[in-house]
Amino acid sequence: MTLRLHYNENTAGCSHDVLRAISALSVHDIATYEDDSRTVANIARWFRVPDLSVLPVNGLDEGILLAAQLAALESRFNYDAVIVEPAFEVYADVVRTTGGSIVRVPPRPGFTFDPAALLALTTENTRLVFLCDPNNPTGLGIARPDIEAIADALPKAIVFVDEAYADFSGRTLIDGTLEARPNIVIGRTFAKAHGLAGLRIGALIAAPATIGRLRQLALPYRINVAAAVALRAALADRTHLTETVNESTESKRLLQEACAALSLETWKSEANFVLVRIGGRSAEFARWMESRDVRIRDRSALAGCHGCVRITAGPVKHTQLAISLLEEWHATQSR
Amino acid sequence: MTLRLHYNENTAGCSHDVLRAISALSVHDIATYEDDSRTVANIARWFRVPDLSVLPVNGLDEGILLAAQLAALESRFNYDAVIVEPAFEVYADVVRTTGGSIVRVPPRPGFTFDPAALLALTTENTRLVFLCDPNNPTGLGIARPDIEAIADALPKAIVFVDEAYADFSGRTLIDGTLEARPNIVIGRTFAKAHGLAGLRIGALIAAPATIGRLRQLALPYRINVAAAVALRAALADRTHLTETVNESTESKRLLQEACAALSLETWKSEANFVLVRIGGRSAEFARWMESRDVRIRDRSALAGCHGCVRITAGPVKHTQLAISLLEEWHATQSR
Repeated sequence: MTLRLHYNENTAGCSHDVLRAISALSVHDIATYEDDSRTVANIARWFRVPDLSVLPVNGLDEGILLAAQLAALESRFNYDAVIVEPAFEVYADVVRTTGGSIVRVPPRPGFTFDPAALLALTTENTRLVFLCDPNNPTGLGIARPDIEAIADALPKAIVFVDEAYADFSGRTLIDGTLEARPNIVIGRTFAKAHGLAGLRIGALIAAPATIGRLRQLALPYRINVAAAVALRAALADRTHLTETVNESTESKRLLQEACAALSLETWKSEANFVLVRIGGRSAEFARWMESRDVRIRDRSALAGCHGCVRITAGPVKHTQLAISLLEEWHATQSR
Repeated sequence: MTLRLHYNENTAGCSHDVLRAISALSVHDIATYEDDSRTVANIARWFRVPDLSVLPVNGLDEGILLAAQLAALESRFNYDAVIVEPAFEVYADVVRTTGGSIVRVPPRPGFTFDPAALLALTTENTRLVFLCDPNNPTGLGIARPDIEAIADALPKAIVFVDEAYADFSGRTLIDGTLEARPNIVIGRTFAKAHGLAGLRIGALIAAPATIGRLRQLALPYRINVAAAVALRAALADRTHLTETVNESTESKRLLQEACAALSLETWKSEANFVLVRIGGRSAEFARWMESRDVRIRDRSALAGCHGCVRITAGPVKHTQLAISLLEEWHATQSR
C-alpha cells in the first residue's frame, strides 16, 4: 500500500463516526437530490457565522472556480487576476477558463509576503486576487493586516483568501472582518484536517451580499448526500480534529529537525506539509521515494521552488517513514 | 413522509447493493482524493465506448456547465446558444453565467420537433445547441436523423444532447454516431433510473478529441468516492434497472389513462414523468397536492406549458396515490 504524502490528505483517515453516518444512509436518501440547506446550517454553526454567509461547494476547487466565474461575469469576461507565486495551480486554471488575464507576483527572498509589491502590480482591471493563508506550497502565513490592506485598496476586486489549511494554523479571517469587507471571500475545505477529501466538501464564507452574488452562479445540487451526513459527523468529533492537528505539529517539528540536520532548507510551515529544498535532483528523489511506496510532490517547477519537494506532515508514524527514507537517500547522494 | 414526484427521482430508491458498497468504504477511502479513472472505466464499459470518450461529472448539471464553458472559451465569451422551448432551466442558467446569448426556439403545436425551424434561428455565432431526448418537461422524443441533421448543419457548434431520461426511452445516440460527429456531446446521468441523484454522478460522452477539450476545462476532483463505488454497484444490478423502467412504463400508462378519463391533455412521454395540462389553476393544484404530502411540479411558467404540471411516473404504488389525489381534486373543481 502506497503512503500518500503528496496531496496533503489526512493519512490517518477521517473520523470513524463518518463511516457510521454514511452507513446509515437509506436507498431513498441516495435517490434524493440533496439541497445544501442542512450543510449550510452545519457549516454556519461551525464557523459561527450567519447561514447567509455560507456557500457549500463540491470541494474548495469548485469555490475557486465560482470566484473566478463571478469576476468574469461582472467584468464581461475581461479582468486581471493576481496570483502570488508560488501558488496552488488551480487559481491559474480557473482564471484561464473564465477569460481572465493572470498577473503573477513573483516570489521574494524567503517567500516573504509584501502587500505593497502586490498592489504595485494591480490595475483598474484587477477584479480578483488569490491569497492563500497558510500558503501552499510554502506553508507560510499571511498577516491579517496585510490581507485587510489589500482588500481595502481594491474595493472592486474579490480578494479570495484560501484557508484550506487554516485548521492547522489556527488563524482565520472568518472571525470579524467579513461584514466590514464584502470583497473578501474565504475558502475553506473539510478535505484536509477533517479527512473528507474523497467526499468533496468545502465552503465559501463571505458577507451575505457577496455570498448572494456567488450563489446566483452556482449550480443547485453541488453537494452529495454522503458529504452532507459525513460533514455533520466529522464536525462533531472534535477529538479527531485535535489529534490530527497535534500529530501534524509534531510531524512538522520532526521533519524540520531532520532536514536541518541534513542541511536542507525548509520554511516554517503553518499547514500540514513542509516544503524542503532537496537540491537539483528533486524529481529524481520523488521517483525514488515512489519506488519505496511513499509519494511526495516535486514542486521544483513552481516559481522560487527550484529543487523543492513538498511532503505532507500528518501522523507521526508516516512522517518518521518519510524521514528515514529521506536520510537514506541523502546518504546515497553524499557518497 | 412527503412523496417526491416533482424532481423525477427514483422514489423506489437505488439498488440495495449501493448501500453495501458505500458501507464498505474505509476511513482512508474517504480521506483520499478520488480521481475519475475507475469511474471512467465503469461508464465506458456500460456504454461500450472507449475510455477516452467519457468525462464523469458531479451530476449532469456540471456537464451542461462544462459544455457552455467550452463554447464560451472557444468563442472568446461571445456566442449564441440555442434552446428549444420548453426546456430544462439549467441550459439558460449556464449560458447566462458564461457570457452567451440565448436564442429560444418557441414551441410548435403539440410540441413537435422541427429541425428546420431550429436551423432557421441559427447564425454564424451559434456555438451551442441544447437538445433533450426525451425532452424535459414534455417527455417527447427527438428522432435521431433530426439531431444528426442539426449536427451536420452546424459543424462549429457543440450539439449537446441531454439524454438524462434515455434509460426510459431506450434510445441513445451513443451507439454509432459519435466518431462521425465530433460536435455532438451526449449528457447522461445515473440520478434517474439508477436512483443515485443524491450522490451526484453523470457523464459526458463524445468523440475522444471533444472529451479532451472538455476535460481541459474540468476541475480535477469532481467525483466523490461514494459515487464512484455506488455507480459500480448500481450498474451491476441490472434487475433494479429493469424493474425501474417497467414500473415507470406501467405508471405512465395508468397516469395517461386516468388523465384521458378526466379529459386532461397529456403527451406521450418516453421519460419517467408525464406532463399534464390541469388547466388554469396548476399552481393551486400543486399546492393542494403538497398539502396532501405529494409534491409535483408546476410547469405552467414554461413556454407552451400554460396550466401544466409535471408528475414523476415511478413505482406504480406512488403513481396510484397521485392519480387518486388528482381524481379527488378534479371532482372538487367540477362541482
